[in-house]
Amino acid sequence: MSRFFTGTLGTLDPYTPGEQPQERTYIKLNTNESPFPPSPKVIEAVDRGEVEKLRLYSDPTAAKLCSAIADHYELKSENVICGNGSDELLSFAIRAFCDEDHPLACPDITYGFYKVWCRLWGVPNHEIPLKEDFSIDLAEYGNPGETVMIANPNAPTGKSIGRSAIEELLKKTPDQVVIIDEAYVDFGGESCVPLIEKYPNLLVVQTYSKSRSLAGARLGFALGQKTLIDDLNRIKYSFNPYNINRLTMAAGLTNFIFARFPAVSGGELYARLKECGILVRHFEAPRTADWLRITIGSGTEMEQFVKTVRAILSGKEEE
Amino acid sequence: MSRFFTGTLGTLDPYTPGEQPQERTYIKLNTNESPFPPSPKVIEAVDRGEVEKLRLYSDPTAAKLCSAIADHYELKSENVICGNGSDELLSFAIRAFCDEDHPLACPDITYGFYKVWCRLWGVPNHEIPLKEDFSIDLAEYGNPGETVMIANPNAPTGKSIGRSAIEELLKKTPDQVVIIDEAYVDFGGESCVPLIEKYPNLLVVQTYSKSRSLAGARLGFALGQKTLIDDLNRIKYSFNPYNINRLTMAAGLTNFIFARFPAVSGGELYARLKECGILVRHFEAPRTADWLRITIGSGTEMEQFVKTVRAILSGKEEE
Repeated sequence: MSRFFTGTLGTLDPYTPGEQPQERTYIKLNTNESPFPPSPKVIEAVDRGEVEKLRLYSDPTAAKLCSAIADHYELKSENVICGNGSDELLSFAIRAFCDEDHPLACPDITYGFYKVWCRLWGVPNHEIPLKEDFSIDLAEYGNPGETVMIANPNAPTGKSIGRSAIEELLKKTPDQVVIIDEAYVDFGGESCVPLIEKYPNLLVVQTYSKSRSLAGARLGFALGQKTLIDDLNRIKYSFNPYNINRLTMAAGLTNFIFARFPAVSGGELYARLKECGILVRHFEAPRTADWLRITIGSGTEMEQFVKTVRAILSGKEEE
Repeated sequence: MSRFFTGTLGTLDPYTPGEQPQERTYIKLNTNESPFPPSPKVIEAVDRGEVEKLRLYSDPTAAKLCSAIADHYELKSENVICGNGSDELLSFAIRAFCDEDHPLACPDITYGFYKVWCRLWGVPNHEIPLKEDFSIDLAEYGNPGETVMIANPNAPTGKSIGRSAIEELLKKTPDQVVIIDEAYVDFGGESCVPLIEKYPNLLVVQTYSKSRSLAGARLGFALGQKTLIDDLNRIKYSFNPYNINRLTMAAGLTNFIFARFPAVSGGELYARLKECGILVRHFEAPRTADWLRITIGSGTEMEQFVKTVRAILSGKEEE
């Protein structure tokens, strides 16, 4: 470091990201990227028109994106904040909810960045050892004044904690924020999002980098009650209000399909799909009555979906 | 704020970005965006193939982009760091080079974010009044221990300081970092980039948001001697190593055109253009000898350039 570097960070040990070699092609199994390309809708969304608009700043409130994410999780926009990757939001949360008197409690074996952010923001870090079998002992968490950070499922162990166990922790610590980093929840594990309505001390952080195949777009989001989200926005507006670029916002909107099929009404198609065991979202309002919102499921699920829609539509042609 | 919000930021007054209304079209003269679209090369660069690669993380070292920027300024890659807008880098610089014993000195009327970052990072801020005519009195800067931040040209006044005056300050303060925020330098004003080689205490920060018409891509960069850039990388790797998304990196590479004209060698075209008063960059190495690197100038400059190239090429046809 230079002789100008602040003494307050003299022993800072930065996070080491997984290797991202540029010089040749590897089978990359080191940074938990998705092997599947992003949704075809992403490729449509990032079109020439969007690129031309790059001369304009992006929307600092990320209004459309927050609204789409809120809708997906049956929350309100005020419950959502978007970040330049979930890393940015996790870092903001440590600045907002920790200080000298509120250390961050986290497992000793977990995402290595938590302790680095504590050093960066000058916050004490209480590392709690995993049990012998690498599981998290929740009874060790919730010490007075400590903010809690848990990756669920944990990395790199892959072990997850049930929602009811986390709910017990939330009840035990009404005066402390519990941050659940759900980067890997879509691969197995119960999300804590359904607990948000009930617990003002719960913050859930997710990312587009893993199951959503958009690591290179840099997009994450945090969900919580309005007051917690407002706190994170105070940090965001004190650091980098335009934290998400326009193309990533356009790409981030397309994780679900909003579609209509002229041969059949939205309401009827919704009902027929439900009979076949497939749930999609239908909104009764006049302008949306013919449309369905379809989440992108697994390959198998989407194959079954397409097969079923085809069968329903060919049945309509015969009517 | 929530009752969980840290007391250390209780009186934080976040930056208010210029309005970015989404609900209707305005003549937007409020956030210093460029009225011109980005280079056509940007639109080519962000193609379908790049979007498909979004499943992969971006290169945390931004190697290609740093190399292109270094080349443009006749520096080395080790002299460059890229950020999620110049805001991110200015914030990193305050964390790296300021602390309780090293306050940030800046004008009282300037980019409003400097003092917000000081609050965010817990750093004292020494605001120095502008003179009556809104100019910066450099004699007031360089107090022992103070890190200096100057926007040059200053915003919102538009007044600029000559390079030689800043060089005097650099000489006077060999033990303090002087940060020159050159967001607007391309619109008039002398860049301090030529001073980097000589002064280890100089950091120059620039942005793609203004003259480069890429506000919505979120890209900025800082230039300085290797030790200062290394310091900023320590902060970056302690905050958000993947701070720039893939599409912005692709777009950021295209601020200059690298072109060849089959009818004429690179060396000859370079020489003929120079005779006509137009300077482009020619590299003698075998693989690049036929190519020219052409910076995107103003509309008038580029019209003159195209007209001159056409005249040279039609002359070649007649030969």
